[in-house]
Amino acid sequence: MPLSPEQIGEIAAQRADTQPTLRAVSPGMEAHLFNALPVLDHGFVRVVDYMGDDNAIVQAARVSYGKGTKSVSNDEGLIRYLMRHWHSTPFEMCEVKLHVKLPVFVARQWIRHRTANVNEYSGRYSILDREFYIPSPEHLAAQSVVNNQGRGAPLSGEEAARVLEWLKQDAGRAYDHYEAMISQEGQQGLARELARMNLPANIYTQWYWKVDLHNLLHFLRLRADAHAQYEIRVYADAICQIVKDWVPLAYKAFEDYRLGAVSLSAQQVDVIKRRLAGEDVVQETSGMSKGEWREFTAIWG
Amino acid sequence: MPLSPEQIGEIAAQRADTQPTLRAVSPGMEAHLFNALPVLDHGFVRVVDYMGDDNAIVQAARVSYGKGTKSVSNDEGLIRYLMRHWHSTPFEMCEVKLHVKLPVFVARQWIRHRTANVNEYSGRYSILDREFYIPSPEHLAAQSVVNNQGRGAPLSGEEAARVLEWLKQDAGRAYDHYEAMISQEGQQGLARELARMNLPANIYTQWYWKVDLHNLLHFLRLRADAHAQYEIRVYADAICQIVKDWVPLAYKAFEDYRLGAVSLSAQQVDVIKRRLAGEDVVQETSGMSKGEWREFTAIWG
Amino acid sequence: MPLSPEQIGEIAAQRADTQPTLRAVSPGMEAHLFNALPVLDHGFVRVVDYMGDDNAIVQAARVSYGKGTKSVSNDEGLIRYLMRHWHSTPFEMCEVKLHVKLPVFVARQWIRHRTANVNEYSGRYSILDREFYIPSPEHLAAQSVVNNQGRGAPLSGEEAARVLEWLKQDAGRAYDHYEAMISQEGQQGLARELARMNLPANIYTQWYWKVDLHNLLHFLRLRADAHAQYEIRVYADAICQIVKDWVPLAYKAFEDYRLGAVSLSAQQVDVIKRRLAGEDVVQETSGMSKGEWREFTAIWG
Amino acid sequence: MPLSPEQIGEIAAQRADTQPTLRAVSPGMEAHLFNALPVLDHGFVRVVDYMGDDNAIVQAARVSYGKGTKSVSNDEGLIRYLMRHWHSTPFEMCEVKLHVKLPVFVARQWIRHRTANVNEYSGRYSILDREFYIPSPEHLAAQSVVNNQGRGAPLSGEEAARVLEWLKQDAGRAYDHYEAMISQEGQQGLARELARMNLPANIYTQWYWKVDLHNLLHFLRLRADAHAQYEIRVYADAICQIVKDWVPLAYKAFEDYRLGAVSLSAQQVDVIKRRLAGEDVVQETSGMSKGEWREFTAIWG
Repeated sequence: MPLSPEQIGEIAAQRADTQPTLRAVSPGMEAHLFNALPVLDHGFVRVVDYMGDDNAIVQAARVSYGKGTKSVSNDEGLIRYLMRHWHSTPFEMCEVKLHVKLPVFVARQWIRHRTANVNEYSGRYSILDREFYIPSPEHLAAQSVVNNQGRGAPLSGEEAARVLEWLKQDAGRAYDHYEAMISQEGQQGLARELARMNLPANIYTQWYWKVDLHNLLHFLRLRADAHAQYEIRVYADAICQIVKDWVPLAYKAFEDYRLGAVSLSAQQVDVIKRRLAGEDVVQETSGMSKGEWREFTAIWG
Repeated sequence: MPLSPEQIGEIAAQRADTQPTLRAVSPGMEAHLFNALPVLDHGFVRVVDYMGDDNAIVQAARVSYGKGTKSVSNDEGLIRYLMRHWHSTPFEMCEVKLHVKLPVFVARQWIRHRTANVNEYSGRYSILDREFYIPSPEHLAAQSVVNNQGRGAPLSGEEAARVLEWLKQDAGRAYDHYEAMISQEGQQGLARELARMNLPANIYTQWYWKVDLHNLLHFLRLRADAHAQYEIRVYADAICQIVKDWVPLAYKAFEDYRLGAVSLSAQQVDVIKRRLAGEDVVQETSGMSKGEWREFTAIWG
Repeated sequence: MPLSPEQIGEIAAQRADTQPTLRAVSPGMEAHLFNALPVLDHGFVRVVDYMGDDNAIVQAARVSYGKGTKSVSNDEGLIRYLMRHWHSTPFEMCEVKLHVKLPVFVARQWIRHRTANVNEYSGRYSILDREFYIPSPEHLAAQSVVNNQGRGAPLSGEEAARVLEWLKQDAGRAYDHYEAMISQEGQQGLARELARMNLPANIYTQWYWKVDLHNLLHFLRLRADAHAQYEIRVYADAICQIVKDWVPLAYKAFEDYRLGAVSLSAQQVDVIKRRLAGEDVVQETSGMSKGEWREFTAIWG
Repeated sequence: MPLSPEQIGEIAAQRADTQPTLRAVSPGMEAHLFNALPVLDHGFVRVVDYMGDDNAIVQAARVSYGKGTKSVSNDEGLIRYLMRHWHSTPFEMCEVKLHVKLPVFVARQWIRHRTANVNEYSGRYSILDREFYIPSPEHLAAQSVVNNQGRGAPLSGEEAARVLEWLKQDAGRAYDHYEAMISQEGQQGLARELARMNLPANIYTQWYWKVDLHNLLHFLRLRADAHAQYEIRVYADAICQIVKDWVPLAYKAFEDYRLGAVSLSAQQVDVIKRRLAGEDVVQETSGMSKGEWREFTAIWG
């Protein structure tokens, strides 16, 4: 359970407090505000604030004085044009602030996206909670045999049980010692900034993460991808749902021109043109390496 | 007059359209929204959107679930502590989007602040308006005789008149030719992306500019400073008024710890300690260069 | 002629001064160092410094202790894999510093690429030179009739002559007045920071521009593109030559996976698969808008 | 011992390979290149590449064609002027690439400095080494009783021994299980990207970190500060030595105007002026909070 009763109460209090504003309002986002979308066993994503909507993209692209809307279909056409032609600055005009609870090893991947603002819960200042990510059996996967950077099928019974037992025991023991080290009962108590070093990478941390829509979509393209590690992908998937409700026109364009898109190299363009002309191209005559050919035929047969 | 009747109408329409929201609302900012603060002869700054308030800074610093407020005096103390100790990330949790109309030579200084999002009116795509910045007589200043990068007293009568005449005539003629070159009546018409090269740097452009509070305060520290060029300083001054109404606690801390603050070098700390101990220090015994000593005595006598 | 005899002398002096280093050395880049590649009528690009080579990309990707080379073919394979799969960080490990002389209206487009370091010649501090970009007749193009943001065929005789005359006269007069305004003979002399506002956007400026290879390639992808304005594209083309000599393996991968690549939307992937299966797809059955279909058939017929 | 014999050999091979270059060369940096400066029990910092020297700062500030040197004393004066007046862009014209080995909890603080390029050793792809940071007894400190975010005196005998024993045992056991989980002997073997979650935050990682001089000095100002955690401060201290040898003039200016400088708030300026005028100011009449007054008197008595 990611939230305590007290936290649930604080969220309910926030959702009860409506105020008037002159700003652009996204109905889909108002429905999300403050609510925690559960992710993994103890994690969540929740929207804390947002700026802008689909119309704000159009308005900025036109540097307009008013709402800048001519018609919804015009707006959709412009948004799709901007996305297709890599005009990124209008999408930077929307901003979202998320509160995320996530395992440290996921946070370490996530933070590599530098164009964002972050405030993380401080283990120097505060005491961390006893919460660890323990994979569910279907996600306790073996090392991939074809990809050094991926995973294969779930581990089978006895091996899975042994791994789960180790993960739980080691985390529990590390936390027991963490608590015992910082305790000030009958002893000085180790500094928190040192004691935290005993905690494993599956402990949960949390942060406020604020990012503009362009950089968020870039994050989602990489992290909602099938090659991303499962434990970060589920956060990206949850955020995709939020973005879809926030800026539906921009999200649809993103699906069509990024998530569902395929980039063809110069060689691949050539091969497809030859195929369309009826030629039977094989790897040796494709101009591609074996690795690239394998990736190509996975999509195009 | 920076705004046309049609634009004034669009702004009024936006200010009439109130909607409910669950987000943090800043009353000071709602009063500013969409209204144009006039700057220079044809320019303005107007708030198009904002995210967060003083409380959002505190909330992020505490990575809290609810509003994160204990009490206003606690919040103020924390904000001042964060500012004093250069904790910048909580201030990044507020964001503002401005629509600015400004001369091109001001825009060229402004854009050097890279950590912001910008959509500028496009001279490739659109036709620029016939509006030029012409300094008022009291700001038509001579080159400084002490500072290569500054200005001195206003020009006197005849010289001032001559300069103003040239500025007006050259701008007018350049715009006449711009219009004549792009005209498609009886001729092909030069491409807009080429014709704009004939326009001088005092022509007005406009953009949407979105920035977080930390980076905005950094901009204001440099551009609301007495050493900044007058024509960008007046924009910074206008934005200072906006920020003061938006996040009054953060702005007060900014005034005390940045705008009104003084940075002492190691040598200057030493000199002040010696003065406090009763020693009469002169430049030769100060460890400072003549230039630095001049800057020092301007503040400390 | 972009360079004065004195400047040519300074460059020759720098090229005569060889020193030993333990750092990675790129022979192709040593041949370029300090030499000015002419661009447009008075502009240039010249390499002032660089860091890294193809091997530095591989070395960083492997976080290696030594040179990190297994073999050239392994290195090439890894570089192509990194480029194909959008692993950008290893390409950020190379850096280049350029000295560029360019018209102000080109500089205004260029500076929109924010992830770079810039020092521009200061018109507040210094007096600008009397050098203006005047298009050659074949680049004095009409406004495009199909693209609001592009240009069409060159202007014909009389119209071209009239435009050229205006561009030259207006620039010359503006500069005459600039000089007269800042002159301190028999008058106070207008501040330089004000006088520069009279100068048109085709005056040349110059800057030092430093950027990492990843962000440089992103710049080149957008600015060496056929849709970029000609006057910035020629700078991008010159830089492409430099990059090709600097990091030949990375540049080849960039040509194959970026410059010569094609991005297919979800709808376009579907249409090509249907065509490969023998179906005759038209716009109405393609799921694409008319604009997108036009772009699609321009490549695929 | 941070380096294996094989790694020492690779470094020696690199230091034996001198090549001619036309670029700016810093003799102090050539002496550092590739050598590992030991930090903590298994960590190090080593220079892998660099761009520029003191002169490159001056050259960029002047946007010069040649070396841009008038005289060393002129150059020093300009560098000090730039530092004193917060002109940051010329310092961005120098760049350094470091290879750093550091505990994960230090890496997590370090990475918060976003304006840098990073390639980290991948625990998804590779197997991590069995190396953990275990504090030496004098750095095994108690929680500070005055500062929630700091540490106090070293732990005394028995408590220290218990803590060290736990840190060692838990790390050893976690690594034993990590190895056992990924082993493919007689079992499938857990995916590396999952197994690493069992490892504690004192395990060592390593990365290539590339940053410009301006952002590096900002990092050093915050992390070489007395309030920084000891374990990151020792890395900052080692880098200070490197920077001092690389750009001695800039480093001296940094010591005088940043490291050894003091920032006075508006209230503090007022108090010092009153003290210089002979007034005896106390906290109640100072306009400062108790916390700020305590910080003030720690410096000024």
